[in-house]
Amino acid sequence: MPVLISTGVSARHIHLSPEHLEALFGQDYALTPKRELSIPGQYLCKERLRIEGPKGSMDNVAIIGPTRFRTQIEITSSDGIKLGVNPPIRLSGDLDGSEPVTLVGPKGKLELDEGLIVAMRHIHMTEQNATELGFRHKDYAMVIVPGPRSLVFDHVVVRVSPENVATELHIDTDEANTASLKTGDKVNLLRINDKKIRIERLINMFDERQMKLIEACVANIVEEERRKVSQMEDILARLRN
Amino acid sequence: MPVLISTGVSARHIHLSPEHLEALFGQDYALTPKRELSIPGQYLCKERLRIEGPKGSMDNVAIIGPTRFRTQIEITSSDGIKLGVNPPIRLSGDLDGSEPVTLVGPKGKLELDEGLIVAMRHIHMTEQNATELGFRHKDYAMVIVPGPRSLVFDHVVVRVSPENVATELHIDTDEANTASLKTGDKVNLLRINDKKIRIERLINMFDERQMKLIEACVANIVEEERRKVSQMEDILARLRN
Repeated sequence: MPVLISTGVSARHIHLSPEHLEALFGQDYALTPKRELSIPGQYLCKERLRIEGPKGSMDNVAIIGPTRFRTQIEITSSDGIKLGVNPPIRLSGDLDGSEPVTLVGPKGKLELDEGLIVAMRHIHMTEQNATELGFRHKDYAMVIVPGPRSLVFDHVVVRVSPENVATELHIDTDEANTASLKTGDKVNLLRINDKKIRIERLINMFDERQMKLIEACVANIVEEERRKVSQMEDILARLRN
Repeated sequence: MPVLISTGVSARHIHLSPEHLEALFGQDYALTPKRELSIPGQYLCKERLRIEGPKGSMDNVAIIGPTRFRTQIEITSSDGIKLGVNPPIRLSGDLDGSEPVTLVGPKGKLELDEGLIVAMRHIHMTEQNATELGFRHKDYAMVIVPGPRSLVFDHVVVRVSPENVATELHIDTDEANTASLKTGDKVNLLRINDKKIRIERLINMFDERQMKLIEACVANIVEEERRKVSQMEDILARLRN
């Protein structure tokens, strides 16, 4: 029943708006691509930034190009504890009311009111795979991770887009370390796409549905008996006449 | 079906042997208890140590007293990456061939050949709970974590001991951050203690067993039909005579 898909592990990184790029690196500055990423058009940049929070800071944080409409900083919950911040778990782009953070670049410092999140784990899915597997955009999937730290990720949001060239589970480094996963490792995607069916319910249903099936079968047998008895009575009545 | 149990989150910490305590803090040094832990007799110490690896170091690492037969250092996989080491995932006390590490104290530095591990998640279970729930020492359990980052921890080793005063899931900070759990949070322990039944198999069985049940029910109905037809034939034969 499960389908093998690849894993992509995201380290902490920053997407910059054109305005914030200039504020941190100077007027008309252009990012320098260093390496292409699995999502077409996205690249790791040579430039790095410093993140500062009330309790700590992190140097050499990666920037992902090209620039975006809004600045978005993705860290792990573990990073949040070190920085002394409490970023919400959000999908990319869902930034309203997210955590404030300070970015420090070679030409300036930015105190942002929002933009810091922990990326919600998700699956980038090709349109073809979505059709084949019966998933729609924003469905929730379940992913089974095998191995010595095996676990099941529940509530994995599916993101279907014509831009996706591969179906891939995207997790952060906290999740990767917890499950002993690295980029390229295979995991099992369950073909269950009902938002209401979560693991706990599934396991409970495991018993419930069996009971219901047995009840239904017993009801069938009783019905069948009644029909047979009724037929016998008809035959006997005819024979007696 | 599931049973609510409490969570205990372990931050990185060190257990010292009497010899290593002296090597790091000086002759006849005694650890200073700061706070009692949930496991009776164990306490957090005022003293702290520095851990050094080939790629980085960590200061102010907690020491758990009292001293133990062997020195054991428990860190997360994330810590391992920062230190540049690759500690195995092990149960407490299982230290043969574990990762080398350097400890630095106020009176000395120790280059250990082994002792560094990532603690395997486990459940401390009281003997009473073990009897009630049908678990034995070293069984594997499954734990469902509810909430926005809900997941199922598979292969959670059960440790039954007369010393345990509460049944508690013990995880490290990587696992806690991944599941958005903190000490005291409740999780659901599944009453499934068959080492061979893991989540994946359970989900597959969900369909397999239903098919088998339906087949069995159909077979029952067919058998019942045959019996009825045979009875009818007997009655008809007798009536005809």
